[in-house]
Amino acid sequence: MNIVCIGSGNVATHLAIALKAMGAEIVQVWSQDSRNAEILAALTKAKPVLDWQEIDRSADLYLIAVKDDAIPAVASHLKGVKGIVVHTAGATDMNVLQGAGSGYGVLYPLQTFSKTKSIDLTHVPFCIEADRPGTLEKIAAVAHLLSQQVAELSSEQRKILHVAAVFACNFTNHLYHLSSQLLEQHQLKFDLLKPLITETAQKIQNALPSDVQTGPAVRDDQETMKSHLELLEGSPELQQLYETLSNSIKKTHLL
Amino acid sequence: MNIVCIGSGNVATHLAIALKAMGAEIVQVWSQDSRNAEILAALTKAKPVLDWQEIDRSADLYLIAVKDDAIPAVASHLKGVKGIVVHTAGATDMNVLQGAGSGYGVLYPLQTFSKTKSIDLTHVPFCIEADRPGTLEKIAAVAHLLSQQVAELSSEQRKILHVAAVFACNFTNHLYHLSSQLLEQHQLKFDLLKPLITETAQKIQNALPSDVQTGPAVRDDQETMKSHLELLEGSPELQQLYETLSNSIKKTHLL
Repeated sequence: MNIVCIGSGNVATHLAIALKAMGAEIVQVWSQDSRNAEILAALTKAKPVLDWQEIDRSADLYLIAVKDDAIPAVASHLKGVKGIVVHTAGATDMNVLQGAGSGYGVLYPLQTFSKTKSIDLTHVPFCIEADRPGTLEKIAAVAHLLSQQVAELSSEQRKILHVAAVFACNFTNHLYHLSSQLLEQHQLKFDLLKPLITETAQKIQNALPSDVQTGPAVRDDQETMKSHLELLEGSPELQQLYETLSNSIKKTHLL
Repeated sequence: MNIVCIGSGNVATHLAIALKAMGAEIVQVWSQDSRNAEILAALTKAKPVLDWQEIDRSADLYLIAVKDDAIPAVASHLKGVKGIVVHTAGATDMNVLQGAGSGYGVLYPLQTFSKTKSIDLTHVPFCIEADRPGTLEKIAAVAHLLSQQVAELSSEQRKILHVAAVFACNFTNHLYHLSSQLLEQHQLKFDLLKPLITETAQKIQNALPSDVQTGPAVRDDQETMKSHLELLEGSPELQQLYETLSNSIKKTHLL
């Protein structure tokens, strides 16, 4: 299988390297950033490409991993190519690819990627969607190369999953950040919280989050919440988040 | 070492069982709930006690693991006992124990406990504090029986750590819950999010959370945030949380 990789960011990097490792050939890496194109091309023994004129039009798969709002423009350059065209975005409708390639669809890995950390993709859910059964089959084959967890989802379902992931991953990571800042301001090490963070994520692997909720809000422990808000007096932003999230917990558990 | 365990909730259960396993003798379990007292007493081969008159006054350690606001009343019953008295609460000042036992202090395990899930305490940070060096030494010895991670913290530091833990654990778990609800409403399985949740918690073990923040807010991806808010139109509460947390991310990363 010959693949043209469009993009050179976190998702492009992880997918291209994993596909290469599974025996696919990455023939080209396109990026508007020449340095990044060269790095990923070197990692995957591909040719870096900056000009749309130079894109190989006979590859089997065109893997688009660029910013969501750049996908339609990329798709317009891929009209008439021989292979199928997929994007890898959670929040973008499949139909922005309409007319591209000999078939089009979505290959969305539900994971948080950082270039500096390698990830075992085997257990990452890949959400797939296609314009028609024949394309779906091809995308499913690519997905199964990468992961044991492949789910067919409509664009609407994928968007819901994406917003749920923002809550469970992006917002969660920001809460880690806020707690690390708070500790730092008081000369305490973030390391102290790491076992707790691990356990919190571990717990819900085999239990409903609502069944394992702990803390002052779910106990309706007014005294502790009051003293926490006093401790946060120097940080109106943390106070507001504390109140908003505590109220949401109370609404879930106490009403 | 003879221990009287005051309380029979999650913390009492985990600590009493672990101390028993390390060779301590749990002589009594006091609880206002006779059924819970009996269960924990049976698990630790202790005697269940409901009446303060019956408390063994010659034990080495009195371990208080009751609701924060009940600690002062418990302490008043432990004046003149032979051993030292500790509470296990994150948000309660050590001084509420003043006058109890032959010395007093705090043994606070920074972890989220559920009765139904056993936890390896070896890596759980135990935060300790004492009225004087002699007591601190004894509490440190107990803490080291249970864990490799023992830190001496003042009441003020412990309270900050506790509120930071509310952000990193309790609020995080609630975000897991909200995302699971959202998926359920759209006939999607929460299982899809579990690898992402694991990886998000894993990532910050060796990186600063602010260095690995992903998602639309940190990219200032207005289009995606707008479409997420539209998807959440049926849930004003989720919309409000989405905006509050996204603004907080933007404030951290984009200002």
